[in-house]
Order: sequence, then C-alpha cells, then structure tokens
Amino acid sequence: MTGTTTKADWIAVDWGTTNARAWAMGGANTVLAEALSDMGMARLDPSQYEAVLLDMIGDWLGDGTTPVIICGMAGARQGWIEAAYAAVPCPALSADLTPVPTDDARLQVSIIPGLKQDHPADVMRGEETQIAGFLSLNPRFDGVVCLPGTHTKWAHVSASEVVSFQTAMTGDVFAAIAGHTVLRHSTTTDGWDDDAFATALTEAQTRPETLAAHLFGIRAEGLLHGMGNETARARLSGLLIGIELAATKPYWLGRDVALIGAPRLCALYETALAAQGITAIRTKGDGMTRAGLCAARALTKPAKD
Amino acid sequence: MTGTTTKADWIAVDWGTTNARAWAMGGANTVLAEALSDMGMARLDPSQYEAVLLDMIGDWLGDGTTPVIICGMAGARQGWIEAAYAAVPCPALSADLTPVPTDDARLQVSIIPGLKQDHPADVMRGEETQIAGFLSLNPRFDGVVCLPGTHTKWAHVSASEVVSFQTAMTGDVFAAIAGHTVLRHSTTTDGWDDDAFATALTEAQTRPETLAAHLFGIRAEGLLHGMGNETARARLSGLLIGIELAATKPYWLGRDVALIGAPRLCALYETALAAQGITAIRTKGDGMTRAGLCAARALTKPAKD
Repeated sequence: MTGTTTKADWIAVDWGTTNARAWAMGGANTVLAEALSDMGMARLDPSQYEAVLLDMIGDWLGDGTTPVIICGMAGARQGWIEAAYAAVPCPALSADLTPVPTDDARLQVSIIPGLKQDHPADVMRGEETQIAGFLSLNPRFDGVVCLPGTHTKWAHVSASEVVSFQTAMTGDVFAAIAGHTVLRHSTTTDGWDDDAFATALTEAQTRPETLAAHLFGIRAEGLLHGMGNETARARLSGLLIGIELAATKPYWLGRDVALIGAPRLCALYETALAAQGITAIRTKGDGMTRAGLCAARALTKPAKD
Repeated sequence: MTGTTTKADWIAVDWGTTNARAWAMGGANTVLAEALSDMGMARLDPSQYEAVLLDMIGDWLGDGTTPVIICGMAGARQGWIEAAYAAVPCPALSADLTPVPTDDARLQVSIIPGLKQDHPADVMRGEETQIAGFLSLNPRFDGVVCLPGTHTKWAHVSASEVVSFQTAMTGDVFAAIAGHTVLRHSTTTDGWDDDAFATALTEAQTRPETLAAHLFGIRAEGLLHGMGNETARARLSGLLIGIELAATKPYWLGRDVALIGAPRLCALYETALAAQGITAIRTKGDGMTRAGLCAARALTKPAKD
C-alpha cells in the first residue's frame, strides 16, 4: 500500500454541546488520527451534521462502508437524531445503538443512547459512555462513579449495571452566580484559597440552609473587610460543592468512589471527599470517553469482522 | 405669583443602580411633581451626577438654595460620593447625612448613608430609608422588616433601631439560574403554579441540602414527564425562597413580620410565611422610600425653617 492517508477501521466521535472530537481507529482500540471541530450541537441543525462529520473524517474513509460510533449531545432531541434514553437499572451501554441514515453510502453512523431514571427524574447523555469506558478498564468495580462538570453526575454502579444516578448542576450554578450576580465583582480571578474552600465545604455540609445567607456574605466581606477575590471564589466553590455533597451523601457514604473528569475540578471533589474520609480513585475524562466508544464498538461489531 | 412652574421646598431622590426617581416636595411631605431618569448608578461616572440631577429637577429650583436628599446607590463607593455605612445597632436614619459638593450654588445635596453589620458581614443601601419610612408610619413596631428583592433584606427592628440584619440574594440567584443555566429552557413563562411553589417551599425548608439535587430535577422532569414551564418556574422560586426561609428562621420565628416591596414578590413571601404560621403585614416599597426621605428631611431640617 502506498500513500500517507490514514484509513480507519472505524471512527469514534464524542459530539458535545460546544465541540466535536473524532478519532480514526485501527483495530479495536488503536488511535490512528484525531480531528476536532467547534461545530457542537448548539450550533447545528439536524441537516448539517453529515457535512460537518465528513469535514472532520472524510479523509479517513476507504472504499467500503466505515462504522462511525457517536456519543454525546448529537443524540439529544435537539441534536442530529434522538437516541432514546435507556432506563436504569441497566448496563451503561447496550448493543442497541440508534442508527442514523446518511446520504453518503460510505458512512454507517450510529449514536449511543443516554440513560434516564424515572423517579427521581434524571437524565445523562455522554457520561454513560465514560462510565462504560471506566468499567471496561475496571470490570469488577462496585461503587459510585462521580463525573464532575457543568452537570455533575453521581452514578451507583453494581454488577456492571448503573443502578441509579443523581445530577447536581453545581458547575452550571457556579458559573451563573460568578458571572451573572453581584458576586461577579468578587470572583474574577485565577487565584484560589485552600483554607476558604475547606471552611466553606464544612459550613455548607453542616448547615446547608445557610447557603442562602452565606452567598451575599461573600460580597459583604469584600466590601467591609477586604476579602480578596481568590478567597471569595474558593468560598463560593466550597459552599456549592459542600451542599452538593450533603445532597448526594446517600451515594458516596461508605462506598468506593471513582472520579472521572478534568483534573483541576476532580481535585476539588477529591479534597472534599477526603474530608469525609473517602479516598477517591481519579481518572481522566477524555480517556474514559474513548474507552467507552471502544467498548461500544466491541459490543456492536458483527462477529464475522 | 404667576407661571405654572412648580418650585420645591425641598427635593427627595431615590437613586438606584438602574434608575433614579425624584419628587418635588412642598412642606414636610406633599408631592408637587415627580421625575424619572434611566441614568442609574451603573451608567454614571461621579462627574456626571450633577448634570443628570439638574436635568431631572432644574425646573423645580427657585432663587435660593434647595435641599436635595438622596438615598440609594448614588452613595455607594462607585456612585456619586461614598456615604459611609452606619454600623448596627443604630437607628435606620441619623441626622448625619453625607454632604455632596456641587458647582450649582442653588443645590444643597446630601446622601443618606447605608447600614453595615460587621459580623456576620452585611450591608444595605437604600433599604434603610424604606425601613425608616415604615417606622415613621409605625413608630412602635417591634419585629422584623423583610424587603424582598434582588437582594432580600431581613432586619430585626426594636426600640426604633435596626438591631441586626441578614441579606439573601435570592432574586439575584433566581435570575441567574433562570437566565444563564440549562434551566433557561424550562423557566421561560409568565405563568405560575401555586401547588408547585408550595411543595418546593416545603421540600427546601425541610431538607435544604436537597436543593442541589432538585435543581436539575426540574430540567429532567420537563424532558421525561413533560413538566410545564409554569410549574418549573414556580418550583425554582419555591426552592430558593424555601432555603432562604430556612436560613432566616432566627429572624422571623415568633416575631411580627412586615413586608416592604413589589406586590407580586411580597405575595410570594406572604404565602411562604403563612405556611409557617406567620401573618405578615404588607406595604408598598415606593411609598416607604418617600416616607423615609421625608423622615430624613424632618431629622435634618434646621430649626429656623
């Protein structure tokens, strides 16, 4: 064979709200090439997905059909095509991916469904693939997988199934308060204050109701006593993660906890859990996504391949 | 005397973050004319206030000097001139207004100072004037004055003094969450759901920590079970006012409560307090502001006038 163009056995895609990331895969789990796009779900109509996908991965296609497995918000109701949620308790992944019709015959696209829980009502889309990736690497894990982020997910995993889960929109609320309330004057900084974070964590866990009183206190401490923005930002984060830990105690108490996500954010949750006597396992989020897409490929690959 | 132009004995001004409102006053408390401006503190440099004020009230000035008494954010550090906070416990108003130098000799401007509390750190600016107005009309009141708004204030008033106070930035947080998180998809409506409000109030007061879990539940209930936006909005409001009542219980429990503010918002607090067995007194916010400015005029008027 000649030429330098990579041809993929199959293609893995993580298609989120703001970005898409694709990998040309060789065999089960070898990455041959990678592509990025800023055309996330929020910027696309259903009719535009195929062209954006071909822009990213067109060079990797050979003469036959190439399987493309997608996870994330491309499967939302407002995405490419809705991949209906699977209801917990169930495995994080099943072989029932949602097929996506395409004009280009070289593409064989399918989307991984999200998970739903009827009561209390909850949904996830994308995180199920990270959980599946983690379980593919840790098949005997029994405990709680926590995925910190804009909408932090706490999933109880047992016997290779997601038993139940709970979302706390802590990151979303943090950004809204730090960006769009009077606290925007107090929290603009890249700095941090470990002690303020730890104190706020304890306060919010011990007396969660005082969150309502402590928020404006951050502003007033700055006005009256010169509290710095690094302290204010750490305190806001500590209050919000603290009340989240109080709300999710039935999840993490007395269980093994695995953290999947961005290192800096996971470190905050690790610190917060350590204060409660929980030693969490930490793994990187993007690696788990790809591992999950590989697990989906293994589940759905025809036996004759 | 001829001519139709109103001349004021003195002028009352409520100068807030986004708007300013002025009244030409005759004698102690008769309103002769009114003027509005959208040039709030947020849009002004200190050097611009005098011109904006003259635009509003220039026609009301006679040949001599006219006292102008201002309350609100014009006295903030980023306002016209800083009117240093008085420290509680203290009367809502003292005779020590902060004088403002002006170029126009017809003006004799002064600003009412806000109140501060050192521990727990808290500040108010503008609400002290409403409290003073309420107390001028209810001089024997002993209890709690609650001023619902962007930053709701709870002030313990006894023997004509503000003993202590507590701010909950519930309105600010509600607007940030309803406008800048994933819940913006769920809460856009003018509708309302009384039952959802009442249920959420109870949940947040009984188990405040579950706020962290219940927020994303609003989104998930919409996706999975078709919860309407009017229910979602009322539920978000109920959760946030519920945790506020849990945090401020030391204020309202067993005390008389007076509500001052916009009728629709006060009605929500009235409902919430009634569920706790508290019958609140309700008054309109703008009337209290003007009554407070009149009280400041009476306190500071030279005896010879």
